Amino acid sequence: MHVAVDAMGGDRGAVIAVKGAIAAARNSGVEIALVGREDLLVSEIKKLGGKGLPIKVYPASQIVGMSESPAESLRKKKDSSIRVAFELVKRGEVEAVVSAGNSGATLATAMIVLGRIKGVRPAIATLIPTLKEPAVLIDVGANVDCKPHHLLQFGIMGSIFSKEFLDRQNPRVGLLSIGEEDTKGNQQVKKAYDLLAASDINFVGNVEGRDVFKGDVDIIVCDGFVGNICLKLSEGLAEAVITMLKTEIEGNLVASMGYTLARSAFKRFKKRVDYSEYGGAPLLGIKGIAIICHGRSGPKAMKNAIEAAHRLSSLEIATKLADSISKRSDILKIA
Amino acid sequence: MHVAVDAMGGDRGAVIAVKGAIAAARNSGVEIALVGREDLLVSEIKKLGGKGLPIKVYPASQIVGMSESPAESLRKKKDSSIRVAFELVKRGEVEAVVSAGNSGATLATAMIVLGRIKGVRPAIATLIPTLKEPAVLIDVGANVDCKPHHLLQFGIMGSIFSKEFLDRQNPRVGLLSIGEEDTKGNQQVKKAYDLLAASDINFVGNVEGRDVFKGDVDIIVCDGFVGNICLKLSEGLAEAVITMLKTEIEGNLVASMGYTLARSAFKRFKKRVDYSEYGGAPLLGIKGIAIICHGRSGPKAMKNAIEAAHRLSSLEIATKLADSISKRSDILKIA
Repeated sequence: MHVAVDAMGGDRGAVIAVKGAIAAARNSGVEIALVGREDLLVSEIKKLGGKGLPIKVYPASQIVGMSESPAESLRKKKDSSIRVAFELVKRGEVEAVVSAGNSGATLATAMIVLGRIKGVRPAIATLIPTLKEPAVLIDVGANVDCKPHHLLQFGIMGSIFSKEFLDRQNPRVGLLSIGEEDTKGNQQVKKAYDLLAASDINFVGNVEGRDVFKGDVDIIVCDGFVGNICLKLSEGLAEAVITMLKTEIEGNLVASMGYTLARSAFKRFKKRVDYSEYGGAPLLGIKGIAIICHGRSGPKAMKNAIEAAHRLSSLEIATKLADSISKRSDILKIA
Repeated sequence: MHVAVDAMGGDRGAVIAVKGAIAAARNSGVEIALVGREDLLVSEIKKLGGKGLPIKVYPASQIVGMSESPAESLRKKKDSSIRVAFELVKRGEVEAVVSAGNSGATLATAMIVLGRIKGVRPAIATLIPTLKEPAVLIDVGANVDCKPHHLLQFGIMGSIFSKEFLDRQNPRVGLLSIGEEDTKGNQQVKKAYDLLAASDINFVGNVEGRDVFKGDVDIIVCDGFVGNICLKLSEGLAEAVITMLKTEIEGNLVASMGYTLARSAFKRFKKRVDYSEYGGAPLLGIKGIAIICHGRSGPKAMKNAIEAAHRLSSLEIATKLADSISKRSDILKIA
């Protein structure tokens, strides 16, 4: 099998994972291990027309709740769908894991079951839309307290990911800060600036908040606390902007006629900023492939995540990251 | 005089400050000290029809550049327009300062010339639009490396500002973090959570990035590094969303007709998210009133900032902050 899907995670139930798996299997022939309550999954697959596709159910008796403590879930739920999915990778039965479940638990389980690549702190990378091509934002939540050399690691891993997965040649790496000059930022970022500038990746300097969506860099490096806030702030703001715009337009009859005509453009636009198009965020720096999806993911996001996971494993991204890191004295010296 | 305006700051030249001053003087009779190159300002006032209004020019021979080091400007430019403006407050000739110039230099000069209120770190508060009423985001750049008790101070100062300036009763204070539970966040934020929860302000818990624009809290507390990134990210994203939307709409003839009809709604919407409506960000925690404006401010933003500065001084906000802080054992104990 190619990809194990934690079918019990996410805010919207197992049906989302089943639909996503069916769509991915049908679209690209990827072989999928659906992990979770066996009776439920078998019946959903049948009901949704998935018979005959390369989808197999792997039983797991426990479910980690969305707000459960990751540490506690690791201790108490040895047979959770998240855990069983990672054990399948460990045993070589599948190549990758996709989960829309408790992201802290997914992260912790990946670390415990698969382990981290020596010398780095695993980080979550996500694609964000820009006015040009999508950019990689790393880390968006795996590490809330970072040292400067962790930011260097994120830059290196983001660089490799961008090159391999997005086919960017010599991808430009920027450091999220509050001004362009190297003297701007907090202590952590100012030290990270020096480390990034001394490394051999294509570091182009600081990126200010207002330039994130311009698309002038391929990778934006930040700590997981700042990155998570930025990611969620962007989601919330994009939603608020669209709501405000609709309210404005609906209050006006003439504009409202215009809105009806403009609706198809709105839809295409929404697709462009919709996270589900990107299908989840890979966890880079572990010995294997894992993609963490938004809890609110729908079938399309799951399908895209499954296909992305399969592609990452075909690209042997984990091996390439490990090889590259093992050769880097700049990372290993500090770590 | 009521308000001193640093007429040489900002990206767009002295004409912006002069236009803003004329509009404020005409609109609300506020008396203005325009500080900068005397010949230039006198001629601009005359040219723009400001004669007869309560506007007086105060000469300053030096200008602090937008990217100049604040420390160096303090050392070398004793006769800068920023410095002279604050000296006017110090001597009691005006009540407040407004500047769209180098914000680091404005901040540093305010601290040196006026001094800080005992027990607190001054912070920059800004109003952000939400789906309901505007909220206060504090700090947006004065303190890039904060201790947990600084975040407590920002919550207290933001609370007083919200109550006095925005007439909010018992304003709700939220702490910007990556999850709602008190266990979510980095070390700094988790400790700040406990301090805020133990204080007597109306602390309602963590606010996630995606909830910032919902308008369910009146004050959002964060360190100046995170706050500055969030502020600029929001500006950049709002601009990017509108650009993407226009591109989408322009590519389609039918939608384009719709867009023409919807344009008036777009304009009202832009007004709602436009920072210039709020006219700048007050620096709270100094012994006096200072408003820091966006470098790109236009005349309207300057006018609104001048009127806001006058109102803050009429409300005696600096005295109220100092009084309130002097009574707080929770702040003074830690500081």
